Amino acid sequence: MELEPVTDLPEIRPGDDLAELIATRTTLEPGDVLTVASTVVSKAEGRTADLEEYPVSGRARELASRLEAITGEQKDPRFAQAILDESSELLIEAPFVLAETRFGHIAPNAGIDRSNVPGHDILLLPRKPTESAERIRSGLTERGHEDVAVIVTDTCGRPFRHGQTGVAIGWAGMPASRDWRGELDRDGHELGVTVQSVVDELAAAANLVTGEGAGGVPAVVVRDWAFGDLEGSDELFRAVEDDLVREALREWTFDG
Amino acid sequence: MELEPVTDLPEIRPGDDLAELIATRTTLEPGDVLTVASTVVSKAEGRTADLEEYPVSGRARELASRLEAITGEQKDPRFAQAILDESSELLIEAPFVLAETRFGHIAPNAGIDRSNVPGHDILLLPRKPTESAERIRSGLTERGHEDVAVIVTDTCGRPFRHGQTGVAIGWAGMPASRDWRGELDRDGHELGVTVQSVVDELAAAANLVTGEGAGGVPAVVVRDWAFGDLEGSDELFRAVEDDLVREALREWTFDG
Repeated sequence: MELEPVTDLPEIRPGDDLAELIATRTTLEPGDVLTVASTVVSKAEGRTADLEEYPVSGRARELASRLEAITGEQKDPRFAQAILDESSELLIEAPFVLAETRFGHIAPNAGIDRSNVPGHDILLLPRKPTESAERIRSGLTERGHEDVAVIVTDTCGRPFRHGQTGVAIGWAGMPASRDWRGELDRDGHELGVTVQSVVDELAAAANLVTGEGAGGVPAVVVRDWAFGDLEGSDELFRAVEDDLVREALREWTFDG
Repeated sequence: MELEPVTDLPEIRPGDDLAELIATRTTLEPGDVLTVASTVVSKAEGRTADLEEYPVSGRARELASRLEAITGEQKDPRFAQAILDESSELLIEAPFVLAETRFGHIAPNAGIDRSNVPGHDILLLPRKPTESAERIRSGLTERGHEDVAVIVTDTCGRPFRHGQTGVAIGWAGMPASRDWRGELDRDGHELGVTVQSVVDELAAAANLVTGEGAGGVPAVVVRDWAFGDLEGSDELFRAVEDDLVREALREWTFDG
């Protein structure tokens, strides 16, 4: 397996054609996987915003005050409003906001970015990242690059483990996970639960060669990697009824 | 960045010298990262066990009964005892056991494996995987393979997201994470929180080329990847006081 960053992409603007910009800067063969950072997908889709666009509801004011009281830092209620607008549920309200986005991803502040936004205050995640991935994939197909899978990535923290890793938030042209259930080990025993989240592993791998910040490369081509002939599925975000941690968080309130 | 599986490793037995077995089957250059699956590290360290070795305490009997009552499946109290022996804390007791191992990793059943154990009932995780990684690294150095970082990996599920991914449980010769805080984005703004868990990303990447089961390849060499000159840290498992999800789980009980 080989990963190659797509270099020399310009600063992305609303309306930019990512498929075109990427395809002219790298080689794409059938079977390759292309990862694209959500930051550039969002920019191409015009998902920048300014805080003045957010009329503040009572709920947002309450959320910001609570965060201020707990953290001792000033919190802009318009930013709280932006989080609420992007979320279907808040799992943690304080000391920081952990929200489920409308497409199912669970991230601090609903994944809203306050860095990397030239000329605007905030950058929202793509509205429907799997549709974004499908659009980029179609764009590649139209340009003669058949059978390239596309993954839209984010970097995100997680419970129990320190730091962030690359994760997938949208994908097209491949299943999200690979199902090893029923496969046998060397000794002929059936394996335990083994649904492998390949899109997250690919996103994590890509994040090792992208880097953050000014030198950041938002797209990576993965070569010589095959999904194999196992069953796949398109589940990536846990169903609510399959998520005990979410259940625990729903019943819990931070008390200092 | 390039990942190459180490093929043709034999079935590993207690006392086997992994550094020797791996070094004779691949090329290792300074700066390479070698990932090794915890299953083979455990086997080399003799971490197989049989359930009859576990005299059952009242606590294990209670845990097994509760699991039986909730899942409707038979649960061996000796297996519950093995989990308790390997754990410093149970975060979830039912409908499945989520435990913190004595070295800080949080995993279902404390990471105890019931497949892949020829001739025995269970396979425990290495007792101190970072020491295991250091031993393999020293073994490589002794054989003239200087400056190869080593990561001991596990595959593990996670809250919020479906499926499992490769994660690091021990590492040597590199920091666990890379600290981008204070770095600037293209627009000159400081980045948000960005501590990148590179050992987990490397473990996830490696898991894409190892596979599970009979065809599984337990070791992978990562080439042409550099940590870079950012600050690093050796935190991987969240400190208790920095883990709200753990706090929520401590206060929560499954009630069907």
